[in-house]
Amino acid sequence: MAELGVFETMYSMRAIRRLKPDPIPEDTLRKIIDAGIHSPSGGNLQDWAFILVRDAEGKRFIRDHYWGIWQKLQAGRPLPANLPATQLRVLQAAAHLAEHLDEVPVILLACARKDYPPFARAGYDRASVATVHGSIYPAVQNIMLACRALGLGTVITTIHCCFEEELKQHLGIPAEMEVSALLPLGYPQGKFGPTTRKPAEGIIHWERWGQKG
Amino acid sequence: MAELGVFETMYSMRAIRRLKPDPIPEDTLRKIIDAGIHSPSGGNLQDWAFILVRDAEGKRFIRDHYWGIWQKLQAGRPLPANLPATQLRVLQAAAHLAEHLDEVPVILLACARKDYPPFARAGYDRASVATVHGSIYPAVQNIMLACRALGLGTVITTIHCCFEEELKQHLGIPAEMEVSALLPLGYPQGKFGPTTRKPAEGIIHWERWGQKG
Repeated sequence: MAELGVFETMYSMRAIRRLKPDPIPEDTLRKIIDAGIHSPSGGNLQDWAFILVRDAEGKRFIRDHYWGIWQKLQAGRPLPANLPATQLRVLQAAAHLAEHLDEVPVILLACARKDYPPFARAGYDRASVATVHGSIYPAVQNIMLACRALGLGTVITTIHCCFEEELKQHLGIPAEMEVSALLPLGYPQGKFGPTTRKPAEGIIHWERWGQKG
Repeated sequence: MAELGVFETMYSMRAIRRLKPDPIPEDTLRKIIDAGIHSPSGGNLQDWAFILVRDAEGKRFIRDHYWGIWQKLQAGRPLPANLPATQLRVLQAAAHLAEHLDEVPVILLACARKDYPPFARAGYDRASVATVHGSIYPAVQNIMLACRALGLGTVITTIHCCFEEELKQHLGIPAEMEVSALLPLGYPQGKFGPTTRKPAEGIIHWERWGQKG
């Protein structure tokens, strides 16, 4: 099978929140992580790590906390009556994922060292965080593109940041690391397909903010 | 010309810091931004913006501040005598870029709304930042992959975060936005090529931190 084109991959990579429980071969998992680390790394430090949670106990722990936060966030915020149908479907899929997170075959946690020493030493905390996140999230994007190319579905989620300390303690993650993203991985129940985006024209500014074309 | 494969693109996308001054067609610039926004966006808010600085005055302003911070960061930190040749070359290329940043045809600033309202409202600031950065940096990665596929060189940089307020004021960027990444864009003087990475095996953990294979 010929490799998917890079633009073809990007343009057909939408969030997939309904996943089959079928296991994923270890070789496939190694391949997506290897694609992940072939992304930029600030100062080439490569201070990242990827935890692949497949065991029932670990997935259950994550699901229970994730679902708890999800319910807390939704509590007392009834859906607007005029919510567009597409948004309603996304919300329902996200709720389904939260409730059934332990049923996906693999939960991937992308971890990164919290600070970038050359900037942190100099007191440039904002640049330090930008460098850390400008390294780990491009790796996550490569992982998601690799998933799409290999027929796996996934979605980037951040709700785990609301119980990050408990999560780190439970999985033995060192204090100096953060858990930057949580990605459920699995074969999709639905189809890949295009993402809907506002036209690029509206968010391109020439020379300075607000200057169009 | 056939589209580059997605893995081929990832694996041959290294940081390119020496760029030709030749202009980049507007169509090419629109194409890379459009690829950028076909990436995940937290809550599909798409609260991002991309400024393409081509005019001499804007590039000069950015270069002067960037080069100032670069020199400040290097001051009093002589290179270790035993620095490996590859690291020395990277440092020299980065210094060359900093000093000549105004000579690249386009400086791209990737901007994002600083907070993600659903988390910020609930007091989950860590999740809010993760969602913002988990949206803008995947877009940046798509932009870099699109650059590679279209024959453009670039590198993600964050030094501008050390003069972010001055930069925002100079370009009229609203207070609620951050400038997440600065990417010089241009046709490469050198060649594309593989990145050097530690083997994936070392950074994969199974089930929990520290558990190997």
